[in-house]
Amino acid sequence: MIQDAVREDAPQIHAINANTSVFSPEETETVDEMLEEAFTQGYEKSGYQFIVSKEDNRLLGYACFGPHSLTDRTYDLYWIAVDPNARGGGIGKKLLAAAEDRLRLLGARLIIVETSGLPAYESTRAFYHATHYKQEAILKDFYTDGDDLVIFTKHL
Amino acid sequence: MIQDAVREDAPQIHAINANTSVFSPEETETVDEMLEEAFTQGYEKSGYQFIVSKEDNRLLGYACFGPHSLTDRTYDLYWIAVDPNARGGGIGKKLLAAAEDRLRLLGARLIIVETSGLPAYESTRAFYHATHYKQEAILKDFYTDGDDLVIFTKHL
Repeated sequence: MIQDAVREDAPQIHAINANTSVFSPEETETVDEMLEEAFTQGYEKSGYQFIVSKEDNRLLGYACFGPHSLTDRTYDLYWIAVDPNARGGGIGKKLLAAAEDRLRLLGARLIIVETSGLPAYESTRAFYHATHYKQEAILKDFYTDGDDLVIFTKHL
Repeated sequence: MIQDAVREDAPQIHAINANTSVFSPEETETVDEMLEEAFTQGYEKSGYQFIVSKEDNRLLGYACFGPHSLTDRTYDLYWIAVDPNARGGGIGKKLLAAAEDRLRLLGARLIIVETSGLPAYESTRAFYHATHYKQEAILKDFYTDGDDLVIFTKHL
């Protein structure tokens, strides 16, 4: 079941990030901070909406998105992650579809996804190709030397 | 003379933005907010460094830059603008060179500049080409339908 994240979900979101090999400690900390802002300030002020996939009380994955400032209805999909122990069940695709549904309700025109060009992110990039995102740009060495930024977009 | 912005510069920075035909009211307001954050929180916490070009007490232009989170020494050049009445004197190029000098001191590895693909920004894009930035990516319809994002980069 997919629903809005509540404050009680924060530890399980943190645990998913900490258990996902591709998240750096800085990235995990950044998600924690964005969660805190989202709960303290609300969606309108923070610009961050978190949704979660839950089965009973177990959190299987989450996504986070919000408007890109100074654009006309362009939204960033900041994060989407699934518990490594819950993979293969289509949870990522369901979270992405739910995020897109919410973004349509918010009036989104364009979704932007940024990811890495490293081999460790090959399945991530395949996920966006499979869900009809367009790989529209690459910035060489953006994250660090040898680690490119890959930008996917989808028009709603 | 190029120096760090001080709080007293804020009205003249606002006036330059308000007088520059390409800044929207939202963009002018965003710069005002970033200035306020820069002065209230300082560079380390806000992540925004403003520098200004001054002649006597007249502010001729400014630039703003700062680190891009979750990257290895990648910096964004957020804004650079010159008083429309002071154009043609190379002030923009001097501001950009001063910003790059500061970024080198900060250890920057890569500079990212985002601008618009609209005809109104043709001179802006020509400016970055002339100062040896590489036009590395275009995101179609990013700002709004018909208004692309153009990304320039420079390795330091």
